[in-house]
Amino acid sequence: MTPEALELSVLVLYLMVATVLVFIMHAGFAMLEAGLTRQKNAANIIGKNLMTISIGMVAYFAIGWGLMYGDSVAGLFGASGFFLSGYEPYELVAGDVGIPLEIDFAFQAMFAATAATIVSGAVAERMKFGAYVAVAVVMTAVIYPVVGAWTWGGGWVAELGFYDFAGSTIVHMTGGVAALVGAKILGPRIGKFDPNTGKARAIPGHSMPLVALGTLLLFFGWFGFNGGSVLALDGEAIGFVVVTTALAGGAGGATAGIYTRLTGGKWDVAMMANGILAGLVGITAGADSVSFAMALLVGLLAGVVVVLAVRFIDSIRIDDPVGAISVHGAVGILGTLWVGLAATDGGLFFGGGADLLIAQVLGILGVAAWVAISSAILFGTLKAMGQLRVSEREEVEGLDVHEHGFPGYPELTSS
Amino acid sequence: MTPEALELSVLVLYLMVATVLVFIMHAGFAMLEAGLTRQKNAANIIGKNLMTISIGMVAYFAIGWGLMYGDSVAGLFGASGFFLSGYEPYELVAGDVGIPLEIDFAFQAMFAATAATIVSGAVAERMKFGAYVAVAVVMTAVIYPVVGAWTWGGGWVAELGFYDFAGSTIVHMTGGVAALVGAKILGPRIGKFDPNTGKARAIPGHSMPLVALGTLLLFFGWFGFNGGSVLALDGEAIGFVVVTTALAGGAGGATAGIYTRLTGGKWDVAMMANGILAGLVGITAGADSVSFAMALLVGLLAGVVVVLAVRFIDSIRIDDPVGAISVHGAVGILGTLWVGLAATDGGLFFGGGADLLIAQVLGILGVAAWVAISSAILFGTLKAMGQLRVSEREEVEGLDVHEHGFPGYPELTSS
Amino acid sequence: MTPEALELSVLVLYLMVATVLVFIMHAGFAMLEAGLTRQKNAANIIGKNLMTISIGMVAYFAIGWGLMYGDSVAGLFGASGFFLSGYEPYELVAGDVGIPLEIDFAFQAMFAATAATIVSGAVAERMKFGAYVAVAVVMTAVIYPVVGAWTWGGGWVAELGFYDFAGSTIVHMTGGVAALVGAKILGPRIGKFDPNTGKARAIPGHSMPLVALGTLLLFFGWFGFNGGSVLALDGEAIGFVVVTTALAGGAGGATAGIYTRLTGGKWDVAMMANGILAGLVGITAGADSVSFAMALLVGLLAGVVVVLAVRFIDSIRIDDPVGAISVHGAVGILGTLWVGLAATDGGLFFGGGADLLIAQVLGILGVAAWVAISSAILFGTLKAMGQLRVSEREEVEGLDVHEHGFPGYPELTSS
Repeated sequence: MTPEALELSVLVLYLMVATVLVFIMHAGFAMLEAGLTRQKNAANIIGKNLMTISIGMVAYFAIGWGLMYGDSVAGLFGASGFFLSGYEPYELVAGDVGIPLEIDFAFQAMFAATAATIVSGAVAERMKFGAYVAVAVVMTAVIYPVVGAWTWGGGWVAELGFYDFAGSTIVHMTGGVAALVGAKILGPRIGKFDPNTGKARAIPGHSMPLVALGTLLLFFGWFGFNGGSVLALDGEAIGFVVVTTALAGGAGGATAGIYTRLTGGKWDVAMMANGILAGLVGITAGADSVSFAMALLVGLLAGVVVVLAVRFIDSIRIDDPVGAISVHGAVGILGTLWVGLAATDGGLFFGGGADLLIAQVLGILGVAAWVAISSAILFGTLKAMGQLRVSEREEVEGLDVHEHGFPGYPELTSS
Repeated sequence: MTPEALELSVLVLYLMVATVLVFIMHAGFAMLEAGLTRQKNAANIIGKNLMTISIGMVAYFAIGWGLMYGDSVAGLFGASGFFLSGYEPYELVAGDVGIPLEIDFAFQAMFAATAATIVSGAVAERMKFGAYVAVAVVMTAVIYPVVGAWTWGGGWVAELGFYDFAGSTIVHMTGGVAALVGAKILGPRIGKFDPNTGKARAIPGHSMPLVALGTLLLFFGWFGFNGGSVLALDGEAIGFVVVTTALAGGAGGATAGIYTRLTGGKWDVAMMANGILAGLVGITAGADSVSFAMALLVGLLAGVVVVLAVRFIDSIRIDDPVGAISVHGAVGILGTLWVGLAATDGGLFFGGGADLLIAQVLGILGVAAWVAISSAILFGTLKAMGQLRVSEREEVEGLDVHEHGFPGYPELTSS
Repeated sequence: MTPEALELSVLVLYLMVATVLVFIMHAGFAMLEAGLTRQKNAANIIGKNLMTISIGMVAYFAIGWGLMYGDSVAGLFGASGFFLSGYEPYELVAGDVGIPLEIDFAFQAMFAATAATIVSGAVAERMKFGAYVAVAVVMTAVIYPVVGAWTWGGGWVAELGFYDFAGSTIVHMTGGVAALVGAKILGPRIGKFDPNTGKARAIPGHSMPLVALGTLLLFFGWFGFNGGSVLALDGEAIGFVVVTTALAGGAGGATAGIYTRLTGGKWDVAMMANGILAGLVGITAGADSVSFAMALLVGLLAGVVVVLAVRFIDSIRIDDPVGAISVHGAVGILGTLWVGLAATDGGLFFGGGADLLIAQVLGILGVAAWVAISSAILFGTLKAMGQLRVSEREEVEGLDVHEHGFPGYPELTSS
């Protein structure tokens, strides 16, 4: 084997590892979201996650990849490469770096499905299953790929100087904004807000072990999400990113746990979980470009921001059963700004000017506008068609029985 | 380090990754099978999976590997290398390719245990635990290794021109046929078939979250199952296989979900899970030799075939609590035939003659005959000894209490 | 890319794989410990595991690594490198071998958190959450790093000739001894010992599926724990270690299952799980230096020893809800002694003198003394401050409600 062939094969191996790690994040999301919702809807949320990854990979193959990386139409979207057509086998893609087509596609497909699955948690316990399947298809086929075309695909946002290493904005905020729009248009679950005071009531999920399992599977997968985003066989960068990811996730979990204890009196396990995820979302944009200390600091901030964001979302009467808007949306913004502030090269804290920070803000605004508008059209259309929300009776009795024919736990009765 | 030494070490790393991915499929099977059966038998099914991987690896080390890859006796089975004796450390094995012995053994041992564990689901909720342990030993020590000797070991089936890349027939159909024979000889669970009409009744499992977790762990592991079966540091082939695997699994899940909705009225989550697994079984034989479009298509077909097969198995009054016969047996055949039809090189659809297809049919028949006969002898002997099936009282009250001394969920009572 | 750069990048990739595998062991511990304890304490045990990995990685970054690998003070502990300060990026560390700093830190940080999490199971269902967080910090920041400094850091125990490949003593026995001290000082759970006879009563956990999932995730991760401990791109050693690990874990599970069946009448699933883990702990010290046969044998012994140790710990009225003292402590000693007895080079069985065995004994004693004393001071201080144990009412009603504000399974009621 020639040295070049060996190097290329090792690159494939590295991205295969990263791809499967991002894949298993879908089990993480499934367990997290199931754990944070009620048992009468467990089969429903689980089914959403199974469909997201299944149909999402197919939709991204058929349409999404081409929109994201095909020949660009005015820096807005691609228009070739649908069904991966027009490539040579093992052709090097992904710009100057040069990644073999097949494994690059596989890695990217897992990202597309991640952006979609974030929505499923925020709209849980009240949305029709068929409508969600439509959302998953549109997210992976169109909404996320256009964001990708603007950024990683080299479109107009990239040309502003916007930098988002592994997707705090591109993946997580995209999912978070769509989640916000979806949750708003759907309206809250019955009983979430006190009809008199308007105050939010806690609707606890049904299984903390599933929450923890989901969180740790997500953390596990995130090492591939961030570690794989180096997209090159660069040992120095890969090792660095593994450490910033570990420190930010750890700091986020520890901070959220301690912060809720100091401010609320109890050790809130769901918040520890959300704190870990927030720390991870927070480091994602800058995992390769902030120092270890700044990684620790963004994790710490994320652990507080997520708690405050959850309370804020409640206060504006939007019902997000799993906290997806806060974790992925609010902290996605924090993580993206953090690059502008704390990147060792170009960040404001380290003698950079405001240029990078401005690019980050503009990129966030541009992506958020596109996702908000497109997902509003999507959810609005489904609503106008009367296909968005289940009936009151179905919601009260549980989506499992009505949408899926049998309960998620056939031998348990809800208390 | 010399280039040769580096290349060999990378090969070990690649197969270590694949080995651990196949290993975790055992957690996938455990969760899937537990989720699809009742909570009174949860400890029992879990215990079977723990014993399968534990004793299975030991049995394959002691006997199975030698039968499969030892010096061949008339192309029928090997007769050396028991306990990995007679090899040099780090000796290159696996034919011309040259894989270091140790990691090749580890990878193969996980496959052997996979073939065995498929049986455990089909015989769930009514078989004696000790009898199952005996089945697991015979499957990993004898039945699967003989199949392996005939095929990957270069025996008579291989000489027909039979091609099964990662084991649609060799692993999955082998497990599926043994599952069929076992389920038939055991007889159905009490209450499965209406005593008057003979019609099958649904006996739902107890936890859809466990079903989803198991399915996604299996999908995750399958990237190692198929990806590792390249058995060479060939980046082009590895990347290709990751994509065909992803597309087929995704298409299978999406199709099974949509198909059951369109034909039955509900979004059946268990069928989505079985559809994913069917897509994966379907692509396993040809993951390296069919195009992306043909991978998608076999996933789509598998998602329908598995639904029909489950109904058919019910209709002939065989009780398979988890659908193992359909997923691994029926779709294993489909996947193997798919190579003869759709392989880019040699498949009937692409101008190949019928030679490959005939070899596939003969291979399927040969393997099925051996597995059916040997497992019939095995299950028949256990039955004749009165060791096969638990008493009616044990079955009704649950195997957990009677076989294992305490329930799988000691604080829950069944409804 | 130069051959040297490629080799170093592959080394990083290999250790990235190992790091994430050890990371996921924390999900394994979380599931195992949750499954083996009661549902009224499920959120509590889960929360402990989330905090251990979160705050543990941060504490090891801030203090632990420097104590373990910093410039040595008299062979007792290090005193530089806190917060990874004073290193060049991508600097080669870890002695002659030369591992890039960042990935070496990440791998080591996962080990530190493992030593800490072992304690959480033994002190389950009765310890205050805040006190446990303090224990997790001290374990990862001080107690484990000092053990590490004495051994892998090249301190006085290493100079005796002590050999512990991947940490039977250094990680597992360290956790096990701290667990023993903690459980002793805490005292047993209410109802564990019959007030009249003093005999132990079984307090079954609440979910065998979680036990199995945890066990299989731990086995999965152990391939990285042991496989990564080769700490060099040595394909021969890596493949060898994967096989010894697989065989010992398999033999441990099979033996514990069969042994309890032969001696007690039932197939004890929790013991199968503990047997697997015992086999893995037993091979950890010698995974690279005992033959396959000796790996099988130590797994077999571990599967019996763990059963006897659990009974012994019960008999001396120490309450260890998950068997951590037996699995990690008792079998950690067995595994370390096994090197002195069965190592192909230097073990007593193979013509070595008693030198190695004596070094192993002295190392065990030295480490055990340090851990026992330091953890006695830690637990004793917490007890003296009245911060160690929850009130009787909290214990009876469950820690979830009192410490965390809501139950782990809000919709289930305990029977």
